[in-house]
Amino acid sequence: MEHGGDIYTEGILKGRKLIDFSSNINPLGVPESFTANIGEGLAGLDVYPDIKYRESKQYICNYINKSWAINCKEEDLVLGNGAGENIDIAIRSLESITIVSPAFIEYEDRAQKNGSKIAYSMLNKDMEVDYKDLLEKVKATQGLIIANPNNPNGGLIDREKFKPILKHCQKYNKKVIIDEAFIEFTGNKDDSLIDLVNSYSCICIIRALTKFYGIPGIRLGYSICKDKDYNGRMRDKQIPWNVNSFAQLALKYVLEDEEYIRVTKKWLEEERPAFIKEIGSLKMVDRVYPSKANFILVRLNKISGEKLYQDLIKENILIRRCNNYNGLGDEYVRLAIKAREDNEILIEKLERYDILDI
Amino acid sequence: MEHGGDIYTEGILKGRKLIDFSSNINPLGVPESFTANIGEGLAGLDVYPDIKYRESKQYICNYINKSWAINCKEEDLVLGNGAGENIDIAIRSLESITIVSPAFIEYEDRAQKNGSKIAYSMLNKDMEVDYKDLLEKVKATQGLIIANPNNPNGGLIDREKFKPILKHCQKYNKKVIIDEAFIEFTGNKDDSLIDLVNSYSCICIIRALTKFYGIPGIRLGYSICKDKDYNGRMRDKQIPWNVNSFAQLALKYVLEDEEYIRVTKKWLEEERPAFIKEIGSLKMVDRVYPSKANFILVRLNKISGEKLYQDLIKENILIRRCNNYNGLGDEYVRLAIKAREDNEILIEKLERYDILDI
Repeated sequence: MEHGGDIYTEGILKGRKLIDFSSNINPLGVPESFTANIGEGLAGLDVYPDIKYRESKQYICNYINKSWAINCKEEDLVLGNGAGENIDIAIRSLESITIVSPAFIEYEDRAQKNGSKIAYSMLNKDMEVDYKDLLEKVKATQGLIIANPNNPNGGLIDREKFKPILKHCQKYNKKVIIDEAFIEFTGNKDDSLIDLVNSYSCICIIRALTKFYGIPGIRLGYSICKDKDYNGRMRDKQIPWNVNSFAQLALKYVLEDEEYIRVTKKWLEEERPAFIKEIGSLKMVDRVYPSKANFILVRLNKISGEKLYQDLIKENILIRRCNNYNGLGDEYVRLAIKAREDNEILIEKLERYDILDI
Repeated sequence: MEHGGDIYTEGILKGRKLIDFSSNINPLGVPESFTANIGEGLAGLDVYPDIKYRESKQYICNYINKSWAINCKEEDLVLGNGAGENIDIAIRSLESITIVSPAFIEYEDRAQKNGSKIAYSMLNKDMEVDYKDLLEKVKATQGLIIANPNNPNGGLIDREKFKPILKHCQKYNKKVIIDEAFIEFTGNKDDSLIDLVNSYSCICIIRALTKFYGIPGIRLGYSICKDKDYNGRMRDKQIPWNVNSFAQLALKYVLEDEEYIRVTKKWLEEERPAFIKEIGSLKMVDRVYPSKANFILVRLNKISGEKLYQDLIKENILIRRCNNYNGLGDEYVRLAIKAREDNEILIEKLERYDILDI
């Protein structure tokens, strides 16, 4: 099961430093607010974390309730060892599930390994959700998982068109798992569907610190849901002390790091439109799909994703092939939006294909 | 499900500092070899860990192969988010299991939550394994889980008496899960059964950094097993990137920290016999069971575990009641062996009961 972010196989383990466009991590790196408090983390390492993570959950509540009027309480939260754990236990708590695809490949993998029955609702040719099809598919399953914005294309859920699906799920006690691991990158809090958790206890929102706060090594995810029974079923699948002390430290400091958030927003407001425009204007690119996230899905022209991957790896650049996404083929690649200078290196490499008319 | 180590409910969350005899952590605290390299951990936090954890597994192989001639390879290892995850996936890979009890309560909890059928083989009145009974019980299940040394009493497996059970399990393709989370505390590498993994692919040894290296906040466990099929079934239950960067950093440095290991051994060689003797000589104590670990199981006289717990918590001392262990009642408590000055504080408190003849 190939993911992005493997800078090891072709990189570190061969003594090479790669520029990684295959994983979607904030290029600002580890927040200073975390690093500055590492001593506090070290001092607390010799005791078990609170098995109930009460203080940590309070930090999340404070963060959520500051931005959205949903009265998030400790009991609504389930903490995960990265959002991957939240996805795993959310899916394993259902016997059948509709997956909006193409999507993060873990959804399918976790469901398959759990033996859950899977229905797929495919995005249309513009990489938009087919809401009519999704409603039909979810009628035959115990719930659905969808990302907002979606990975690998970066598209958002249309809240009005999504309402009939929410109503159906609420009525028939089905679950709507919404993976918002990338939501902070959109720069607009109204893009989140988190405000609906009060009206729809069927909704389970999953988030993470990983991407936006540039700390994939820390492993911290969480889910917000007002359904006590579902939260209980998820918790039953968890081991005690599943969140490490440094992840708790990050929760305490980075969610409040206004400066980091401000600089990230500014970076993406500048780089996202520029990157989309420049990549989109390449002859080798057939299409760039609209993205509100920090990555773009690209359909290639004339060159295969595999060929481009192999070419670029020789130049120490790593991109994400998309041929293991359900519904995508070797004509697609996913590119993270990085800092200006890295983006320019990539674009310059790609421009050569146009010049040489390969 | 109550565990030891909850210094929060009656302690931190009420602004009180407790002396914690309820969790069995090395009182030497976080190894200096870890703290000194924290900068390396911070520097690597902005990239995903290697999804295969190749370098980390190599550090474990080096450590294992230095002490035991078993030729441990990367493929024999499964890394966990604490030994708790290793226990969880090892148990969930069996449909029925024999639990040698009383034991770490997670064994039972994980099996129950997974819906695995459970048989219990109870320790005898001296808290020793009943090997004849264990063989009978395991005949009706797909495997067994046992700890070496066992928690809560600290007793070791008798390797000769255990052999018929190993032979049975090897012959009938059953699994023998041996939790060696406390093995380094015995001070004698021959107490481990890890040298048998080559001859018995039925054996799955589980270990952790948590206790011996005084870093329960870090979350790092691992298992060693030569059965590829079983390892695969366990890995299928894991999420990607389940081990955080700081746990990887710990693996790199603490396993090689000879000074920490030496000082720990010296501390326990002095404190264990002294603690056992002093606690055992109290009138309020009916019996202390032989322990090779860093904790002791105590049967009380005249006073209940609950009463003693309540008395001591008023004096900011936390002990482990044992009434939620299968096979133990409220006449038992478990006490961690701590640094001399803490041990003396506890013993002094307990001596008052004798003086007052309560």
